[in-house]
Amino acid sequence: MKKLRIGLIGYGFMGRAHSNAFRKAPNFFDLEFEPVLQAVCARDEAKVKAFAQRWGYASHETDWRKLIERDDIDLVDIACPNDLHKDIALAAAKAGKMILCEKPLARTGPEGLQMVKAIEKAGVPNMVWYNYRRVPAVTLAHQLIEEGRLGRIFHYRAKFLQDWTISADLPQGGTGLWRLDLKVAGSGVTGDLLAHCIDTALWLNGPIAKVNGMTETFIKERKHTLTGKVEKVGIDDACAFLARFQNGSLATFESTRYARGHKALYTFEINGEHASIAWDLHDLHRLQWFDHRDQGLVRGWRSIHVTDSDQPYMAKWWVPGLQIGYEHSFVHQFTDFLQGLSSGKPASPTFRDALATQFVCDAVLKSARTQKWEKVRA
Amino acid sequence: MKKLRIGLIGYGFMGRAHSNAFRKAPNFFDLEFEPVLQAVCARDEAKVKAFAQRWGYASHETDWRKLIERDDIDLVDIACPNDLHKDIALAAAKAGKMILCEKPLARTGPEGLQMVKAIEKAGVPNMVWYNYRRVPAVTLAHQLIEEGRLGRIFHYRAKFLQDWTISADLPQGGTGLWRLDLKVAGSGVTGDLLAHCIDTALWLNGPIAKVNGMTETFIKERKHTLTGKVEKVGIDDACAFLARFQNGSLATFESTRYARGHKALYTFEINGEHASIAWDLHDLHRLQWFDHRDQGLVRGWRSIHVTDSDQPYMAKWWVPGLQIGYEHSFVHQFTDFLQGLSSGKPASPTFRDALATQFVCDAVLKSARTQKWEKVRA
Amino acid sequence: MKKLRIGLIGYGFMGRAHSNAFRKAPNFFDLEFEPVLQAVCARDEAKVKAFAQRWGYASHETDWRKLIERDDIDLVDIACPNDLHKDIALAAAKAGKMILCEKPLARTGPEGLQMVKAIEKAGVPNMVWYNYRRVPAVTLAHQLIEEGRLGRIFHYRAKFLQDWTISADLPQGGTGLWRLDLKVAGSGVTGDLLAHCIDTALWLNGPIAKVNGMTETFIKERKHTLTGKVEKVGIDDACAFLARFQNGSLATFESTRYARGHKALYTFEINGEHASIAWDLHDLHRLQWFDHRDQGLVRGWRSIHVTDSDQPYMAKWWVPGLQIGYEHSFVHQFTDFLQGLSSGKPASPTFRDALATQFVCDAVLKSARTQKWEKVRA
Amino acid sequence: MKKLRIGLIGYGFMGRAHSNAFRKAPNFFDLEFEPVLQAVCARDEAKVKAFAQRWGYASHETDWRKLIERDDIDLVDIACPNDLHKDIALAAAKAGKMILCEKPLARTGPEGLQMVKAIEKAGVPNMVWYNYRRVPAVTLAHQLIEEGRLGRIFHYRAKFLQDWTISADLPQGGTGLWRLDLKVAGSGVTGDLLAHCIDTALWLNGPIAKVNGMTETFIKERKHTLTGKVEKVGIDDACAFLARFQNGSLATFESTRYARGHKALYTFEINGEHASIAWDLHDLHRLQWFDHRDQGLVRGWRSIHVTDSDQPYMAKWWVPGLQIGYEHSFVHQFTDFLQGLSSGKPASPTFRDALATQFVCDAVLKSARTQKWEKVRA
Repeated sequence: MKKLRIGLIGYGFMGRAHSNAFRKAPNFFDLEFEPVLQAVCARDEAKVKAFAQRWGYASHETDWRKLIERDDIDLVDIACPNDLHKDIALAAAKAGKMILCEKPLARTGPEGLQMVKAIEKAGVPNMVWYNYRRVPAVTLAHQLIEEGRLGRIFHYRAKFLQDWTISADLPQGGTGLWRLDLKVAGSGVTGDLLAHCIDTALWLNGPIAKVNGMTETFIKERKHTLTGKVEKVGIDDACAFLARFQNGSLATFESTRYARGHKALYTFEINGEHASIAWDLHDLHRLQWFDHRDQGLVRGWRSIHVTDSDQPYMAKWWVPGLQIGYEHSFVHQFTDFLQGLSSGKPASPTFRDALATQFVCDAVLKSARTQKWEKVRA
Repeated sequence: MKKLRIGLIGYGFMGRAHSNAFRKAPNFFDLEFEPVLQAVCARDEAKVKAFAQRWGYASHETDWRKLIERDDIDLVDIACPNDLHKDIALAAAKAGKMILCEKPLARTGPEGLQMVKAIEKAGVPNMVWYNYRRVPAVTLAHQLIEEGRLGRIFHYRAKFLQDWTISADLPQGGTGLWRLDLKVAGSGVTGDLLAHCIDTALWLNGPIAKVNGMTETFIKERKHTLTGKVEKVGIDDACAFLARFQNGSLATFESTRYARGHKALYTFEINGEHASIAWDLHDLHRLQWFDHRDQGLVRGWRSIHVTDSDQPYMAKWWVPGLQIGYEHSFVHQFTDFLQGLSSGKPASPTFRDALATQFVCDAVLKSARTQKWEKVRA
Repeated sequence: MKKLRIGLIGYGFMGRAHSNAFRKAPNFFDLEFEPVLQAVCARDEAKVKAFAQRWGYASHETDWRKLIERDDIDLVDIACPNDLHKDIALAAAKAGKMILCEKPLARTGPEGLQMVKAIEKAGVPNMVWYNYRRVPAVTLAHQLIEEGRLGRIFHYRAKFLQDWTISADLPQGGTGLWRLDLKVAGSGVTGDLLAHCIDTALWLNGPIAKVNGMTETFIKERKHTLTGKVEKVGIDDACAFLARFQNGSLATFESTRYARGHKALYTFEINGEHASIAWDLHDLHRLQWFDHRDQGLVRGWRSIHVTDSDQPYMAKWWVPGLQIGYEHSFVHQFTDFLQGLSSGKPASPTFRDALATQFVCDAVLKSARTQKWEKVRA
Repeated sequence: MKKLRIGLIGYGFMGRAHSNAFRKAPNFFDLEFEPVLQAVCARDEAKVKAFAQRWGYASHETDWRKLIERDDIDLVDIACPNDLHKDIALAAAKAGKMILCEKPLARTGPEGLQMVKAIEKAGVPNMVWYNYRRVPAVTLAHQLIEEGRLGRIFHYRAKFLQDWTISADLPQGGTGLWRLDLKVAGSGVTGDLLAHCIDTALWLNGPIAKVNGMTETFIKERKHTLTGKVEKVGIDDACAFLARFQNGSLATFESTRYARGHKALYTFEINGEHASIAWDLHDLHRLQWFDHRDQGLVRGWRSIHVTDSDQPYMAKWWVPGLQIGYEHSFVHQFTDFLQGLSSGKPASPTFRDALATQFVCDAVLKSARTQKWEKVRA
């Protein structure tokens, strides 16, 4: 097995999810590459050292530029807040590293476009961690659609509902709360949550032609953790938009952090001429499937418990009926990345693929400002 | 249309359910008989008069023997407590009336057998109101089984769970509480709730060969409404039993009024070689269907919303997606009775059919006493 | 009891639903008025005669103007296609009749406004059959909101999904298909389905300030049943819109007849600061309730089986656990109308209330044309 | 951190599940011990070598006696078929090793008793992998019961339904199929599946006093993989039993591998005076909770998505709303074992605890033979 020496930047929620993927992939999947946890980088030395020890990283750094300069790193994994994605990616591309980047690719389309140009110029393998494509039920949905089982598509609808920022006492900025800080995050729920919905939608249903959105910031001011002052909240707390896909189907998208009772309820549904599919992150191991070609007398939505060995990825886990969880989507995605290296067919979404999501986000936010339909940049 | 003049005995919960059925059947179904609400009978004159007025009965009686003597009554409907079923049925049979009887047929098998002999001797049309056979989803289950779609049957399981008698302050006996009074009811949950489960089971899966049961009375003494004294509780509060059907399948049955959180949760499931069926009274308009012959990739339990016009009884109601409720099962049952009169093929369950359930109940209660397996009287 | 002599116009799906309500209300509810089925009117004499006989109408008419002229009619119930609502209502108001009108009130806001002016000038009792307000679970939702249990409202979302017009072979126009004929219906899913969603939303969450919609007609041409020719389809097959309520909450609404797998899936959800509510027409007897004030350890969505006697309307039906169905909403609505006559507090929605829904529909359809946000006429 | 050097015996389904637990526990939980994957043992050298490499075991053995003799092993983990549990445990105890043993502890009670005596004599730390205790939702159920929230317990019901042996073509014996071979497995579904149900039940509801069971072998003969001949099937394909707990509650238990449509549907429900709990392995991240003390108007079963940081084990995983899966129960169990070593309070179930389950299984199987109620050995 060829060694693939990984340098991880960021050790938060995503740093852990990625590290777990690096460690588990070779236990469960057949790979030509052996992931080596070479180094992890973050600014707080004590904490990054402890993280390295817990996860088995051989070394640590506190300056990402140093990490990128190291000769013993083959792949740079960007798992830090959004405002650093671009600079790191540009430097890593220049250094000829493979690059993985946590989603969203960037804070804006133009920022993302710079990154795409840099990695394409450098010709380095790359991928963005839109992990939900690798939930087996979602992968199965993709497969069913690719097989043409739905026929002409009429409707797509997706939402991502949370409720964790309802309290006005919650501050913005800093560790764990940078997603509320416009400068760091780039946007609110649009880049954080809708980006997931959009990525899946583009994958399942093709390009979006135009959008019409609205946003709202329910809590207008919050104390900023870093400055200690009450500051204006710049992000969108909620965002909903109408869309038309290039294939003629109509869509509604919605995301918020003010939907009481929903922790991370990402749902999508797609209605075709012959069949429909629905999925829900809160029960991610199930796929809902309705096929009009079933006999009328016994026609109904099927709840598919996606744990059989003929279903995507599941042959490598346990036995039928035993569900996997959230983190496995990262294991699958990293596995696909490595298998893409082996086969020469890059795993999706590449930076280029992820840029398309960025352009949809930009159009949605623009539309919310202009109060008009906006075309999505191709 | 031939008039069918009905005399109803009893005006409680079941008197209302039957009356509603008499009134609605001709609005929705095509019948050769016109049900005429000729008389209603109960002991309290003021109340029975008010009931007659509310439901449109042309007259009332306070003595059931008088009702039976009347020439202008074609059909006697027994909807009073269990301890009167036998005497009324015998008298009505002797008078040559058609007879409908609320379930259970009787308090015991021997009592039921007398009734069966009487009506068979008299040759009068008869039926017992085991209404759950006429919930469209249950009728559909029967149809699927009759078509052989399940193959060899391995398992049957049913339960009927309630929670309304948990308080020790609840008295026994009298209006609304006669079901807790052994002398009136004949038994507790066995005759009241398990009888429903057994009737459906016999209909769907054939005869039960032997049973092994246990019963419990959790609250040993309750004040008796009629005597005003604290008296021993004679009924079974809970009953569970194992069973073997003649077709070789195994079964578990359970009923209780001490299952917190369940109001009237009658559920059954049947597992065959090729397919399985499940149903639940709390969502009675749905049938759960699993067919192993579906393609593995998209195999799952189907939730059938039984509201389409090709599904039992539903062509006569509203439009697909609009559910019916509990009371409709009585409308269907009465409709089937009338259509049985027209066609000459009696609607089930007849008194004879219902006697089989009685014998299972007897065997279960005997088994609980003997602590042994008991054969069911054929 | 005072007699209330009813003249029904139209004997289709809604004629049946209303007739059933007239007949059942006095069996189950305590009323000061006795509904009398005096006459039913429709153009086809043979059919209207048969309908009268089946449902117990004392007479029939084939010209609605004659019905309105009759002295023995107290209340005119409009249950015919939308294009006749206005003329009938104007004539009935002039004749001093009470008026019930099937929804939508009219084909357009201006048409509806004429009707409102007419009935307000005449001072006659009136109501529009937006029946879903009277599904007990929906009424309970209204009660919980009125009690302030949700706190500040952030989000409202509703959809009404069907799949019955997907086939291009389905013609437009004529009996059962007038909903596809623009001239008769006034609009497609907007007036037919979204009107229901909007009515409930206005009732639960107050006025809508502005909307931004899109519509689509997937099948552009269909054979017209009456002309026999292939004609352009004028109705909206699908419509989705964003909205802002006056209370500051954001909303998404969607309706279509092209959502494979959904027969009549009307759902709504409302998210407040403290609690959320969700409901679904396919299981109309349940209400989903999430209360953040529950202890965190055991917090979750509650599935309320709305069949207890302390829940709206349910004391009058059966016993806990036994569900009612679609048609009961009409029984409740008619009961409320009669009780409004008794109490002097008119039952909602009046024509005036229903006009607000009409104005929202108009704004949505206008927005779909202008591609801009449109204010809702107050 | 103290090193804990592990020697694993067996590399099948459970060998993988345990290995994953050894590797993941220190990434997610704070431990005083560092698990070291020292050696893995199985008969096929090529395969065990590959397994060692895949999972990071430092060495391998092909004779379990040699593994136990090694000085560099602190803990022996028994993950091979049931017929070897006893001999390995006895040898490991004699060698003074800590011992983990996959469930069921043994093929029979007497065999288990020998094991318990051996480890208690040796005084070595020990635990049996009844992993479902460590599913967070199940642990939460235990906590709620311990807090007394249910009050007096009336009912317990559990079942474990599978459908993977319905085909008569499936052979018995050998890799992956030893569970169908009576000599190796000791029993069929009773030791394999009901043992899980019983372990949970004893933990949640205390000792079982007596049982009354029935078993069935639907397919009487199957080809034996090892002999190549068609041989009698000795195991129980299905088993159901009634039980009475020492606390006075009644129970039903059922297990089968012939329930079409269920892959691994382990469910339990417990009904108490005040509250009820239900759980389902197919959605293992949820707990169903009904509390009668909730206000009647909004009372209903709560679906608790057990992913919050105040819920058992979940603070160490991801964020609310992101579910974990089957394998995590093993991580938790191993973590608890290590924390038990640190605290001196042994994690449950110990061999002694697991013996109680064995005695229930014995009584059930005996009852199926004697056709009588059998007391459970204390």
